[in-house]
Amino acid sequence: MKQRNCMVAQSGGPTVAINASLAGVISGVTESGAYDTIYGSLNGITGILNNKFINLTELMTQHPEYMDRLTNTPAMYLGSCRYKLPHYMDDDSSYVFIFKQFETYQVDAFFYIGGNDSMDTVLKLSEYGKRIGSSVRIIGIPKTIDNDLCETDHTPGFGSAAKYIASSLLEIAHDTFIYPVKSVTIVEIMGRDAGWLTAAAALARNEYNTAPHLIYLPEVAFDQEDFLLDVKRLLFERNNVIVAVSEGIRDASGNYISASEKSKDTFGHSQLSGAGKTLEFLVKEKLGVKVRSVEVNVLQRCAAHLASKTDLEESFTLGKKAVALSEEGVTASMVTVTRVSNDPYTVNYGHAEIKNIANEAKCVPVSWISPAGNDVEQPLIDYLTPLIQGEVDVQYQNGLPVYMDVSHLTGHQ
Amino acid sequence: MKQRNCMVAQSGGPTVAINASLAGVISGVTESGAYDTIYGSLNGITGILNNKFINLTELMTQHPEYMDRLTNTPAMYLGSCRYKLPHYMDDDSSYVFIFKQFETYQVDAFFYIGGNDSMDTVLKLSEYGKRIGSSVRIIGIPKTIDNDLCETDHTPGFGSAAKYIASSLLEIAHDTFIYPVKSVTIVEIMGRDAGWLTAAAALARNEYNTAPHLIYLPEVAFDQEDFLLDVKRLLFERNNVIVAVSEGIRDASGNYISASEKSKDTFGHSQLSGAGKTLEFLVKEKLGVKVRSVEVNVLQRCAAHLASKTDLEESFTLGKKAVALSEEGVTASMVTVTRVSNDPYTVNYGHAEIKNIANEAKCVPVSWISPAGNDVEQPLIDYLTPLIQGEVDVQYQNGLPVYMDVSHLTGHQ
Repeated sequence: MKQRNCMVAQSGGPTVAINASLAGVISGVTESGAYDTIYGSLNGITGILNNKFINLTELMTQHPEYMDRLTNTPAMYLGSCRYKLPHYMDDDSSYVFIFKQFETYQVDAFFYIGGNDSMDTVLKLSEYGKRIGSSVRIIGIPKTIDNDLCETDHTPGFGSAAKYIASSLLEIAHDTFIYPVKSVTIVEIMGRDAGWLTAAAALARNEYNTAPHLIYLPEVAFDQEDFLLDVKRLLFERNNVIVAVSEGIRDASGNYISASEKSKDTFGHSQLSGAGKTLEFLVKEKLGVKVRSVEVNVLQRCAAHLASKTDLEESFTLGKKAVALSEEGVTASMVTVTRVSNDPYTVNYGHAEIKNIANEAKCVPVSWISPAGNDVEQPLIDYLTPLIQGEVDVQYQNGLPVYMDVSHLTGHQ
Repeated sequence: MKQRNCMVAQSGGPTVAINASLAGVISGVTESGAYDTIYGSLNGITGILNNKFINLTELMTQHPEYMDRLTNTPAMYLGSCRYKLPHYMDDDSSYVFIFKQFETYQVDAFFYIGGNDSMDTVLKLSEYGKRIGSSVRIIGIPKTIDNDLCETDHTPGFGSAAKYIASSLLEIAHDTFIYPVKSVTIVEIMGRDAGWLTAAAALARNEYNTAPHLIYLPEVAFDQEDFLLDVKRLLFERNNVIVAVSEGIRDASGNYISASEKSKDTFGHSQLSGAGKTLEFLVKEKLGVKVRSVEVNVLQRCAAHLASKTDLEESFTLGKKAVALSEEGVTASMVTVTRVSNDPYTVNYGHAEIKNIANEAKCVPVSWISPAGNDVEQPLIDYLTPLIQGEVDVQYQNGLPVYMDVSHLTGHQ
C-alpha cells in the first residue's frame, strides 16, 4: 500500500532553537496523522544523497519523553551540512537522485530547517520539483541567530542568542565594574552582515547598568577616529567603558575591521574574527588605557541552558505550522512569523514564497541606529525585548544539562 | 557606649560565589548578634584607606529581600582592588591608618574575602596587629576560580566555574558534532599555574560524549610534537577532536605556550592569553585541518546564571563560619572546607593559620594526571564531580537575571 511519508533535515550553523522546530514537525505529524513515517535526513540534504536516515516516528514512539529533551537540545540533532546544490541547469544529477529518493521513501513533503543558504536549497528543489511536475511539497523552516531572513518578523534561534548576549553583557558589566580604574572592554558579537544580535547587547541596560556604552553594527560604516573620540569622551565621564561590536563592522570603503586573515567558506562568505581584537589593539595604542576584548564565540549560538522560552515556543510552533501548510498543499514556501503587536506581544504564523527569501538578507533599518552610528534607538529595543522573554525548564543530571544523545552523528565514539 | 562592629571587604578576581560569602557574613552576624554594625569596605582594603564604606546592616535591615539576590550576584558587590600592601617593616603608614580606622569604627573583626593575594593581605594585617597588640580578629574567607589555595579542600567560586566549563564544553561538543568533516576545536580555559578548572572540562563527558578528547594542564610540561601526534591519532579515529587546554601550559623549559605578548600585573604575575590561539595556528600549519579556538574568557568566572548550588551554599556557610570563629577569638586564619567523603559528599568547615596559606599554591597532583599528560585520572573526576552539583534558582525579570544594583561602584552613571 502506498504510504504518505515526510522527510525533514537541518542545515547551516547551529542555534539553540533548531531542534525545537524539529520537535514541532514531529508533534505536528503525530497530532494530525498527516504522514505515516517521518524520516530525518542526516547532515542536511547530504543525508538524502548518501542514504542516511533516522526513523523519527519510531524513535519518538519508543521514547515520548524525548520530545522535551529534543526541544531543549542545542545545535542539530540531525546534523548539518554546508553543501551547496549546483543549479539544475548546470548539473541536475543531484536533483534526479533526490527526487528518486522521495519516490523510494514515498515522501510527500520535505521540510528543511535552516538559514539563508538552506533557503537557497529550498528554492532550487522547489523550482526543480515544479519543472518535473513533482507533487512533493517543499517547505523551509527558518532558523538563524543572525535574524537576517526576509519576510519573517524574526527568526528562530535569534531570541535565545539575544538573551544569551544580553545576560552575558550584564554579567561582564558586573565583572568589569569592580575595579575603580579606567578600563575599556570590547565584546565582539556574531553577525557578518546584520547587526541584530549585537544590538541585543543593549537589552543588558537596566536601572543601574548603562553598559554597553557604545554599540557598533555592520549596517553603518565604522570610523576609527570617531570610535576613539567616543571612547575618550566616555572615559572622561566614567571608569569602565564597555563596547559591543559586531564581528562584521566595516569602514566607509567596505573593508572589514578585522585583524585576522580573511578566507572564504563554500558559500563565498568571508570568514571573520578579530574585530574586537583589532579595536583592543587600537585603544591600547592610541589611548594607552587598560583594555580587554571578549569574543563571545560559539557559546552565543549553543548555550541552550539559557534559551528564550518565547523563542523555543515559536520555533516549535513554526515546525507544526509547516506540517499543517504541507497538508493544505503549500509548497515552495517558508513558514513565517508576523508581529501583530509589541505590547502585549502577539504574533501570527504564516508563510511566504521562497523566491522572495532565498539569497536576500534583512539588515537593521538605519533609522533604528543612532545618528552617530554608535548606539541603537528605542524602536529597536522595543522590537528586541519581547524575543528574550521567558526561561526554559532545562533538566539537569549530575550537575549538567540533559540533552539528546547525538552519538549517531559521531559514530558512537 | 562602645560598639562592637565588624568590617568586611572583597578582593582579587571575580567569582560567582564571592557575594554568597558576603551574604554568609551578614547572615552570621544577624543571627548571632555578635556585632552591631557591618561595614562593607569598598574596593577591598583601599576602601579603608580611602574611607569608603557601606553600612551593610542598614541595607539588609531595610531590604531583607536582598539576601538571596546578593547570594546570586556575580563579581564583588563591594568592588575589588589589586592593591598590594607594602611590608610594614618597609613602610607601616598604611597599617597605622588601617588600625586607626578599626578604632574609629569600633571594629572588632575584619573579614577579607579573596584569593591568594588577598590572603597575603590577611597575613600582613594579622602580623602587624599581633605586633601592636591589637585585639581585632583578622579572618580570611577564600574564593578563587583557580582552586589553588592550600589548607582547604577546594575554594568558593571554583565549583560554579567548573560547572560552567563542563556545561559549556558539552554545548560546544553539540555545536561541533554536527558537521561530518574533520575538525579540531581548542577550548582555552583560565588557570595560570593550576589546572583544576581545565580538568573540570572532563565532567562534560557522558554516555554519548567523549569530548574533551585531550586535556592539557599547566602541571605537566607541554610538548608540541606529542600534542600533534595525539591530535593526528584521534583524527584518524573520529571526525571532531575537542581539546581542553589551560591558558598556563608551558614547555619543558617553563616557557608559556602563548602567542601573545606577556606583561606583568601588580603582583608580578605574567598576564596570559593565547595558548588556544597558538595551538590553533600550530594545528592549521602542521596538520592542515579545519581548526577553531574558543577562549571561554571572563564568562567562566561571572556567569552567575549557571552557578553550582553546592558552591554557593558552601560559600555562604564559610561566611557564617568566619563570623562564628571571630566570636571564639580566632584570628590570623582563613576558614576552610575539609572533605569527609565523596559519596555521599560530606564536608566539615574549619580554619587554618593564614601563614600556611598566603603565597602558597596548590596544584593538581601529578598522580591525578594521565601518564601521557594529555588527560585526567578517575580520582580527579571523583574529586570534581560533587562540586558542580545542584542548580541555583536565579530570578529573571524582563528576560534577564536579576542581580544586585552595583551603581555605588560606578558612580551611579
